[in-house]
Amino acid sequence: MLVKKVEQVAAQPMAIEGAHKVSMRLMIGRDDGAPHFAMRHFEVAPGGHTPRHRHNYEHEVLVLEGRGEVAGGADGNDIHPIGAGDVVFLPAQELHQFRNTGTGVLQFLCLVPTTFDCAADGEQPTPGS
Amino acid sequence: MLVKKVEQVAAQPMAIEGAHKVSMRLMIGRDDGAPHFAMRHFEVAPGGHTPRHRHNYEHEVLVLEGRGEVAGGADGNDIHPIGAGDVVFLPAQELHQFRNTGTGVLQFLCLVPTTFDCAADGEQPTPGS
Repeated sequence: MLVKKVEQVAAQPMAIEGAHKVSMRLMIGRDDGAPHFAMRHFEVAPGGHTPRHRHNYEHEVLVLEGRGEVAGGADGNDIHPIGAGDVVFLPAQELHQFRNTGTGVLQFLCLVPTTFDCAADGEQPTPGS
Repeated sequence: MLVKKVEQVAAQPMAIEGAHKVSMRLMIGRDDGAPHFAMRHFEVAPGGHTPRHRHNYEHEVLVLEGRGEVAGGADGNDIHPIGAGDVVFLPAQELHQFRNTGTGVLQFLCLVPTTFDCAADGEQPTPGS
């Protein structure tokens, strides 16, 4: 059993092109022995956003704090406001982006399979994979 | 893209032997097209607890609200207090239990792989699988 607090894990800037004011904490990943999926905690500062991108694995998200919007859908232009208690499922290959539209930090949990790795497409590895 | 609020999903009593005052919302599961893992939202009322059990798949947990404790470890007797912002990883086959030790509802997110199903051991299917 592994028990840790979100604030005990160092936040790392999200080093992916298109990310702006985003940091990530890898809470549970492959190095912890997670065999199937990784738990990552994100913070997006006001005015920030995740990359507008697509990849060959899904996202499962719970918004914890703050105000923002998620873009997704067939062409990545369906936009939903998001706040604490909102759950988002983004299937593989769907163009998407999370944006902070509020005045506080947007915090969300985003889980990905550990068995996929977008480096296979010549991109950067999935953080947590 | 699927966006929904936790409170939009009906909470179902956890129908597993040993569960007491526990309800679950299946937020993202196989029926939503989730290929690898399922997101479930749990509420444990004061005095309640999840089953003390083990199974052939892991748990990844984030505590959202309330006070409680988790039992796990080699013999299921390592006990850690838990509260909002605590993350717990329980590997497959580890004996474990979540207990509400507070006066409010203990809320946590618990993710499991969709590709495992404890019904294979003659038990009930994994909720969300």
